[in-house]
Amino acid sequence: MTDWETSISSSGEDAVIRGEALENVMDMDFADAIWLLLKGEKPSEEESELFNTILSSSIDHGVGNPSTVSARTVQSGGNEMNTSAAAGILSLGNAHGGAIEECMKILQSDETAEQIVDRYLKEEKKIPGLGHKVYDEEDPRARKILSKSEELGLAGEKVGKIKMIQEEFADRKIGLVMNVDGAIAAVMSDLEWDHRLGKGLFIIARTPGLVAHVHEEMDEPDFRREDGEYVGE
Amino acid sequence: MTDWETSISSSGEDAVIRGEALENVMDMDFADAIWLLLKGEKPSEEESELFNTILSSSIDHGVGNPSTVSARTVQSGGNEMNTSAAAGILSLGNAHGGAIEECMKILQSDETAEQIVDRYLKEEKKIPGLGHKVYDEEDPRARKILSKSEELGLAGEKVGKIKMIQEEFADRKIGLVMNVDGAIAAVMSDLEWDHRLGKGLFIIARTPGLVAHVHEEMDEPDFRREDGEYVGE
Amino acid sequence: MTDWETSISSSGEDAVIRGEALENVMDMDFADAIWLLLKGEKPSEEESELFNTILSSSIDHGVGNPSTVSARTVQSGGNEMNTSAAAGILSLGNAHGGAIEECMKILQSDETAEQIVDRYLKEEKKIPGLGHKVYDEEDPRARKILSKSEELGLAGEKVGKIKMIQEEFADRKIGLVMNVDGAIAAVMSDLEWDHRLGKGLFIIARTPGLVAHVHEEMDEPDFRREDGEYVGE
Amino acid sequence: MTDWETSISSSGEDAVIRGEALENVMDMDFADAIWLLLKGEKPSEEESELFNTILSSSIDHGVGNPSTVSARTVQSGGNEMNTSAAAGILSLGNAHGGAIEECMKILQSDETAEQIVDRYLKEEKKIPGLGHKVYDEEDPRARKILSKSEELGLAGEKVGKIKMIQEEFADRKIGLVMNVDGAIAAVMSDLEWDHRLGKGLFIIARTPGLVAHVHEEMDEPDFRREDGEYVGE
Repeated sequence: MTDWETSISSSGEDAVIRGEALENVMDMDFADAIWLLLKGEKPSEEESELFNTILSSSIDHGVGNPSTVSARTVQSGGNEMNTSAAAGILSLGNAHGGAIEECMKILQSDETAEQIVDRYLKEEKKIPGLGHKVYDEEDPRARKILSKSEELGLAGEKVGKIKMIQEEFADRKIGLVMNVDGAIAAVMSDLEWDHRLGKGLFIIARTPGLVAHVHEEMDEPDFRREDGEYVGE
Repeated sequence: MTDWETSISSSGEDAVIRGEALENVMDMDFADAIWLLLKGEKPSEEESELFNTILSSSIDHGVGNPSTVSARTVQSGGNEMNTSAAAGILSLGNAHGGAIEECMKILQSDETAEQIVDRYLKEEKKIPGLGHKVYDEEDPRARKILSKSEELGLAGEKVGKIKMIQEEFADRKIGLVMNVDGAIAAVMSDLEWDHRLGKGLFIIARTPGLVAHVHEEMDEPDFRREDGEYVGE
Repeated sequence: MTDWETSISSSGEDAVIRGEALENVMDMDFADAIWLLLKGEKPSEEESELFNTILSSSIDHGVGNPSTVSARTVQSGGNEMNTSAAAGILSLGNAHGGAIEECMKILQSDETAEQIVDRYLKEEKKIPGLGHKVYDEEDPRARKILSKSEELGLAGEKVGKIKMIQEEFADRKIGLVMNVDGAIAAVMSDLEWDHRLGKGLFIIARTPGLVAHVHEEMDEPDFRREDGEYVGE
Repeated sequence: MTDWETSISSSGEDAVIRGEALENVMDMDFADAIWLLLKGEKPSEEESELFNTILSSSIDHGVGNPSTVSARTVQSGGNEMNTSAAAGILSLGNAHGGAIEECMKILQSDETAEQIVDRYLKEEKKIPGLGHKVYDEEDPRARKILSKSEELGLAGEKVGKIKMIQEEFADRKIGLVMNVDGAIAAVMSDLEWDHRLGKGLFIIARTPGLVAHVHEEMDEPDFRREDGEYVGE
């Protein structure tokens, strides 16, 4: 039989989060409590400010993306909030919301910028964190995160590494703007977050958006039906 | 075919959340951004402080409850973060995490305290928001939320109503301590939140806890197996 | 701590399903094994034939409905088969695939046909199992299930009851054709299946369809994005 | 905007499954309809018999495994059948139910038996489809599937390949019994099923078991709580 042990929290009268009494956690800002829960220690004031910016940057992004479509479609099938919000989170796979984690992984690896660029070019894959469909010059959200991290004295080696990757591409005549996923990945890596929390970070940030969309969907009278076409023989 | 319209947010270069430019939302605290997203306006300073307390109060609660067990069990089956976190959220049905919403619903209804108590006694059902397995006198988390709401001048008619329900029970010799769900339900109702967001609020608050547990589970070597027993003929 | 006991099956060397050795279950047709598992006994030859028809009738139904859209959208987000198929099943709420269960419930209740019709008319709700968007005269799938059940000598009191409900509506000048959900609900009730298995029956029948759609989606190059429109201020 | 096209099925009056009128599909056995849906053609009589055995072999397997625990735990949280059954399916990741697909993949690859064994030994990984905790000599379910496939004249090159892999291990003094996943993987590969349907096949077979367990859980009075232990500082 399995043992259910954890170093994260306890319940009941003496409930704690990472050793801190839950009653004290209730006096913390939500973002700080998230940091404590996932990092095992409280953030500094600067870390807290930057972390709030990162979370708020991903809170929602319109109605047409896969996670919102999934959540609202499931809600329209006649379901409860938990079922529909979970369906939205399910869609956050490697192709939608997974870039932060993949970018954190390469930034936290031993591969040099040069090796990384060689490998991605050889494998003909898109590198996570660089490149944007709309912006040629600069992604304003990426810039905001980076400049905050510099002002707050929190930009370090990993912000440096993603810029080196960018320069390696530029040396080979490939101009790639840094996108918001890349900025978050670099900054969170400098803040010493485990790359395996990259997708979790995005899920935490986006769940409020999914809840908002499911709530809005509750007032829709019908269930969602797309015009499907049968193209078999 | 279905139309995908929303009043919540847009994406792309001019992305907004409830009319506010996403770039400005990035300067907001995460809890304030959640409030904006779900209420359609920014919170006052007092509302923000109380809302942070409410979110932080529910962030995690040990390893043995259904949502944590589901999330970690699914992760142990060899899955990714989004799949496992979603499985945890699925378990947040009416019997686990649903009390806030049910309590908001009765507080926001036209039923009087007396009618509510009569109905629950007649139907022999447990009333959500009142009663606690451990505390006879006072639930410290409920007290903290209530006293903060009073200090901040935010306690109103709904906090009054839940106390009246409590007194109605007391008049019939049934002593019920107010629990944390009841305190949150009363306060969020006074803050004019739609009761249909009650469960969503809990999901937002608890998702960081589920992410933390899935992350911890990643280091477990085996999948979770319980000792099952066949008791058929 | 919870005890994990079951009357359904055991694992290991002497594995059984409802008391039958798993090795023998392997010699049963899949539909018969499903019947054994859910009813606790083997079906007769006639029951088996009718049950196969019912399961096959719901196996898939085009690409535009909520469950298929959810499953394929989640797959397009970069996920595995289990995650995407589950997202499809999540969408099978009360408004999509729930009619069989609701219809079984009223057929298995003590309410008479007259009382049922009175109640639905008073509550201004659509009755499950009757009514069709396309067919005015007859739903060919409903007819096939009903006539098979009659040929096989399996139509009983509940098939009679749904016809009485239909006549009660006709007496009030409301012509409602019996749809496939109604036919399945009546027949499964005559076969003495618990109404709480109604939705489960539909899930079992439709899962192959969801798997087929997720498999087809694996060859789609991009993720699913709908044209969303922001209509906020 | 995305186009919803499919070669699988259509809905409405002229509904088809892979070109076959749905009304005719209703006269097919459920397992045959599943085969048609996923393979695009009807099975032969021999293929049908073997396919029924394979599906029935995986229909359920006790109460303690991750998928059953997830499904029942979510149901105990106060949810509907679709939500709970989906939670069970979510747990069917690479470590639980994923061996069929992984084994099909290597059997369908160009790697020779010798290369496969070399690679698994070098990577120090367990090979899917071979090895069993309980049986030293023979897994009776694997034997049944293999001998049926031989009697029915359906065993081919892939059954041969898995036996060669087994012999390669034996040559290196590693005795590994073929397990039920390996037998299913070899036979389904000889039946020319795409390996990417391996997990889907298991999901289809196991969904009835999950539905049965969720149904049984409906009669449990309380929600599932495990004894968790906090082992943080």
